[in-house]
Amino acid sequence: MPRRKLPLSKVYAVLESGPVVLVTTARRGRPNVMALSWLTMMDFEPPLIGLVMSDRNHSFAALKATRECVLNVPTIEIADNAVACGNASGARVDKFAAFGLTPLSASQVRAPLIRECPVNIECRVTDMRMVRRYDLFVLQAVAAWKVSGSGELKTLHHLGGDRFMVAGPVVRLRSKAK
Amino acid sequence: MPRRKLPLSKVYAVLESGPVVLVTTARRGRPNVMALSWLTMMDFEPPLIGLVMSDRNHSFAALKATRECVLNVPTIEIADNAVACGNASGARVDKFAAFGLTPLSASQVRAPLIRECPVNIECRVTDMRMVRRYDLFVLQAVAAWKVSGSGELKTLHHLGGDRFMVAGPVVRLRSKAK
Repeated sequence: MPRRKLPLSKVYAVLESGPVVLVTTARRGRPNVMALSWLTMMDFEPPLIGLVMSDRNHSFAALKATRECVLNVPTIEIADNAVACGNASGARVDKFAAFGLTPLSASQVRAPLIRECPVNIECRVTDMRMVRRYDLFVLQAVAAWKVSGSGELKTLHHLGGDRFMVAGPVVRLRSKAK
Repeated sequence: MPRRKLPLSKVYAVLESGPVVLVTTARRGRPNVMALSWLTMMDFEPPLIGLVMSDRNHSFAALKATRECVLNVPTIEIADNAVACGNASGARVDKFAAFGLTPLSASQVRAPLIRECPVNIECRVTDMRMVRRYDLFVLQAVAAWKVSGSGELKTLHHLGGDRFMVAGPVVRLRSKAK
């Protein structure tokens, strides 16, 4: 199914439910990927995202040096691969090859999209002042993609350790929230 | 069912899945509550939480002045009440009375726990330097509570507008993550 532009005004609706994301980076021509749950929306449009990445990760240096990444949203269909990403270090393993993930060229950044993820959000780092103290990067989404017809996404939500909640039913409630 | 202490080391496992929370504050003896989805874990222990609250909310001034709040985690059982909180302003309405929520005394802060929420996390604001630019408060959890026997929580996860995902099945995946 084709991957189409997702309007930037819709990015918050994907991320504010709290899914696990696969963060891709690329440095010196070499892509890397890690799994992460610690992020929040910070503004609607342009979409700002606060992302906490520990400096113990191999991706940290790449994010800091290149100031670019892609947030790829995995679903239950590739859960084993997504989690395997979190168990290995990009310092030792080509995680794309090892875990059956396919890098695709992004439009605005050098970090790749992951083909197996139905949503991909290309981001630039806009503020690193909270990195030293909190490992907190402020990202701005600059392009986003969604596979057409992917329907309600069965996203993964980390409950700690080896436990993950899979997105359940969608209900409509009389909310005035955006 | 009794409400028991939840170890602070377990707080991240409740919040990192991205549930909607009801944030309670209290100022000049008057409690208030609002619904919010924009938060992320920032550290495990002591648990640090980054919370984005727009200054358009009545709760904003109370949080800034008192530097205390409680994050209460609602479930599908009280979804209508939780969402109703987000539709009204504490400037005009006593939202506890209006929406059938019961305030209980907290142990460390003046903001109340909400009886109808199975998890309550008492927090103090520890850093307001990112408030002016990003509406971002850094909170430290100082006490937490969980209703015994509440099982897997059917938390709510905002998908934008009036759409909410209800927590689905829990799976175990071979993750080395904490």
